[in-house]
Amino acid sequence: MADRKLQVIPLGGLGEFGMNILALRYGDDIIVIDAGMMFPDDALLGVDIVTPDLTYLSENREHVRALILTHGHEDHVGATPFFCAEFDVPIYASAFTLALVERRMEEHELDHRVQFRPVKPREVVDIGPFHIEFIHVTHSIVSALALAITTPLGVVIHTGDFKVDPTPTDNELFDLHTFAEYGKRGVLLLLSDSTNADRQGYTESERAVRPRMEELMERSPGRVIVCCFSSSVHRLQQVIDLATAAGRKVAFLGRSLTNVTEIAHSLGLLEIPDGTLIRPSDIMQMPPSKVAVVISGSQGEPMSALSRVSVDNHKHLSVQPGDTVALSARIIPGNEKAIFRMIDHLSRRGADVQYGTMKPPLHVSGHGSQEELRLVLNLVRPRYFMPIHGEYRQLSKHARLAEHLRHAGLEEIFIVDAGEVLELDDAGARKAGRVPVGRVCIDSGTVDEVVEDMVIRDRRHLSEDGIVLPVIAINRHTGRSETLPEIVTCGFASAEDGSGLLQAARQVVARTLEASSEEEKGDWGVIKEKVRADLRRYLVKQTSRRPLIMPVILEV
Amino acid sequence: MADRKLQVIPLGGLGEFGMNILALRYGDDIIVIDAGMMFPDDALLGVDIVTPDLTYLSENREHVRALILTHGHEDHVGATPFFCAEFDVPIYASAFTLALVERRMEEHELDHRVQFRPVKPREVVDIGPFHIEFIHVTHSIVSALALAITTPLGVVIHTGDFKVDPTPTDNELFDLHTFAEYGKRGVLLLLSDSTNADRQGYTESERAVRPRMEELMERSPGRVIVCCFSSSVHRLQQVIDLATAAGRKVAFLGRSLTNVTEIAHSLGLLEIPDGTLIRPSDIMQMPPSKVAVVISGSQGEPMSALSRVSVDNHKHLSVQPGDTVALSARIIPGNEKAIFRMIDHLSRRGADVQYGTMKPPLHVSGHGSQEELRLVLNLVRPRYFMPIHGEYRQLSKHARLAEHLRHAGLEEIFIVDAGEVLELDDAGARKAGRVPVGRVCIDSGTVDEVVEDMVIRDRRHLSEDGIVLPVIAINRHTGRSETLPEIVTCGFASAEDGSGLLQAARQVVARTLEASSEEEKGDWGVIKEKVRADLRRYLVKQTSRRPLIMPVILEV
Repeated sequence: MADRKLQVIPLGGLGEFGMNILALRYGDDIIVIDAGMMFPDDALLGVDIVTPDLTYLSENREHVRALILTHGHEDHVGATPFFCAEFDVPIYASAFTLALVERRMEEHELDHRVQFRPVKPREVVDIGPFHIEFIHVTHSIVSALALAITTPLGVVIHTGDFKVDPTPTDNELFDLHTFAEYGKRGVLLLLSDSTNADRQGYTESERAVRPRMEELMERSPGRVIVCCFSSSVHRLQQVIDLATAAGRKVAFLGRSLTNVTEIAHSLGLLEIPDGTLIRPSDIMQMPPSKVAVVISGSQGEPMSALSRVSVDNHKHLSVQPGDTVALSARIIPGNEKAIFRMIDHLSRRGADVQYGTMKPPLHVSGHGSQEELRLVLNLVRPRYFMPIHGEYRQLSKHARLAEHLRHAGLEEIFIVDAGEVLELDDAGARKAGRVPVGRVCIDSGTVDEVVEDMVIRDRRHLSEDGIVLPVIAINRHTGRSETLPEIVTCGFASAEDGSGLLQAARQVVARTLEASSEEEKGDWGVIKEKVRADLRRYLVKQTSRRPLIMPVILEV
Repeated sequence: MADRKLQVIPLGGLGEFGMNILALRYGDDIIVIDAGMMFPDDALLGVDIVTPDLTYLSENREHVRALILTHGHEDHVGATPFFCAEFDVPIYASAFTLALVERRMEEHELDHRVQFRPVKPREVVDIGPFHIEFIHVTHSIVSALALAITTPLGVVIHTGDFKVDPTPTDNELFDLHTFAEYGKRGVLLLLSDSTNADRQGYTESERAVRPRMEELMERSPGRVIVCCFSSSVHRLQQVIDLATAAGRKVAFLGRSLTNVTEIAHSLGLLEIPDGTLIRPSDIMQMPPSKVAVVISGSQGEPMSALSRVSVDNHKHLSVQPGDTVALSARIIPGNEKAIFRMIDHLSRRGADVQYGTMKPPLHVSGHGSQEELRLVLNLVRPRYFMPIHGEYRQLSKHARLAEHLRHAGLEEIFIVDAGEVLELDDAGARKAGRVPVGRVCIDSGTVDEVVEDMVIRDRRHLSEDGIVLPVIAINRHTGRSETLPEIVTCGFASAEDGSGLLQAARQVVARTLEASSEEEKGDWGVIKEKVRADLRRYLVKQTSRRPLIMPVILEV
């Protein structure tokens, strides 16, 4: 292999949202930065999660030296179990990030083979020709790291995800000094987070949610139910502090919330005063004004805790007039309809639902806006700049933000798509070819089934297993399905052996409908998910095949 | 029928977004306020527009006296042609609203039977027991009216859609005085627009978009391409004025834009200085810095002008680096993915795309926020209040905004769903039963086919015409469809007569794919729409049947 050549190879997360993974190669040594997953599009028809195609790494298996995780968000670590199933290399990350990954590994029964290497900010490790310093950055999750990677050709800075929060709730400041030091000494290439490159100004500090949250805790006559991402430890800390100050006990609903709080508490990252927590089963036993609930499901996921609460189908919480529901999370594009439907249900039960943008805010982003991106660009003053983490529109906005640095040593900006290779050597930098990239779709049934039933399926196998469409006609006036559901198939069951199976499958769908409440039937997202899960279970059992199941609901 | 009983019967637009229509009945007389359509959900699988079920009105045909339109937006007038096909009664509205409706009627060849009754603000008409005064309100469309309807039981105020714009661009102020006068004399019931009831503060004036628009017109090195709703006459006026001041000529792209500007110009509502306009075919002949284009397609509709421009498939406009595209419209929830995909395409062509919230803004809403809703509530001080125009979450927020009026004579607030009847008499007000409501789905092919090919289809007929699913496998790496598309059907063609037809249909789909550019194939929204349109044309011609066509694209 040519010496003195550095290749930057994004395998996901550029030109698409989520699924961040990037390989850095010098000669015969490859390090991989992040291994994230993506939440799938409706267009992917019932797939549960999407992970990056690792073909490039498999083809260069003997050169892969390590995986480095910048922070614990799913779009940066969610594919780690699948990565570890293939590559037996050490994983470097903060203790908190590793603990989150470890929990995932246990679920996949993969933990025995993983070499975890916890690192701290300012710590340095050497991996082949790469000399890596970890740098503390502020983000919506705790223990987020940027990387300064010194290579024989120069320094590459990878920001991970960040905002420049001037007043973080844990008082751990963004390490501006180390960025400045590298900038002063000279940086070859900056890879910087573009998620909010289309937002003007500064992102507000995490502390900005405090006034609104405080008001809700103190003034709400009933329960305060806060819905946020389970990994938002700073947010959880504020909820716990403010609930306690207002004389409320706190319950957590949702398995991932319970996991994260246990981990964060054990690592000293989340303070929970004794006597603060109550069990989910105690929620309805306490006076409503003495309770705060933290709940998962901010994206309206059909089987999430908050979705189930919204249709009054959760065993531990029934929302009543007087209760306040605070949606303290962003809306991921594509989820609006599901979220708004959930808000409508909660409003109908009499809850005062607080959502959307407001001042003071109920939610602030974890990603830096344009002025913070400019600040990092100006501190680092790289020779080359490549925006990362974003769809094309964000990457191109970020590129425009760097234009003024052309007067300060910036030679070129590269907007690179996943799969394109950026090559750097003594002569400069340029795009140089492509490597295979793609999405691997993973069916895992409903959220509760993830553990027992994780099967990696590539849609390439579709032709083998076929498609099954249960077609359900629901009478708009009665809300009932008055005829037996139809089942249409393609490439699944041949006529002679299939008719009995499909007749039975129609009964399975009919039973799912009968077992569902009126409100669930009114919410097509929920009912489709239930039909899909039950039918899949049935078909796998009967045929050992896993067709694509795509429920169709018709209003008649 | 019982005397001295007033019934308020919302037939659409409450508990759902769009499709506003409300009947007011006193004894044997019914007036209908607005007849709107709804843009359908993805869940409705390829239906083009949705109109309200008029069963209640049909069953009371002999009592229907008039249709009154508050303003010309599609969610208030879009179902008028279907209404007029059934009911031969006069239509009262502003001249501008009537002109928009007339254009639609001509397209449906329905104009001969319609009695148009233009009205002006402060004008009064008597229809049976209803004495109706029209009141000028500010909104994103010109000539918007509220109604003060004096009945034997008291006054009902219907706000239509409004904001309280303190500095409207046409200097026609919101008629606060007339609202105040009625409020002073006593109002029985207020029906008020809830669209923005979940937004704090005041909505900015239409004039607030001026600074940003001015900057773009003056500073952009290339073309300035502004995308807004065609009915936003105030916005169009500002674009024309600022483009002219910056030395740019203006072209309109999109049929509805051309229609609206012609109508507004002929009524003196839009000033276009001589020599300002250029034809679409001249756009690419002029120096880019001398051109501004107003274009339709702000919601990423697959066949709209801007969508076609984004994949470089428009005969009159090819976007180049240096051009600026300004999205000056709201994102209707559910359309985010299509819009972001369009922005990504435009960014890839090198355009500087301005979108999203920013200060100063590129777009302001036409609907009043919480403080404006409170202002109208306080001016009117009704005895009963019923929020209208919104999903349940907005209606319930609006209801909460009125709580303080309980100290000022407000007796009760009714959150009413479409189909529920609010009954008022000497004893008070109460919900009293339901009438049939629902959605009628209309297939009209692509936007261009609306005129020639308008067929009213209720999905109840689905069992007759069946479902056809073209299943297209696209290779992610090559972007090509390498095998002949499959076609799955349900209830459409029986095996013996169908196989030849379906073989031919597979060829039709394959030809559509071949005739599409790489970029179109990369945009599943576009390709699905094209496949659907071509296949429908073929199947209608061959079989005279109109199955539901639902293209499925699989990435392999």
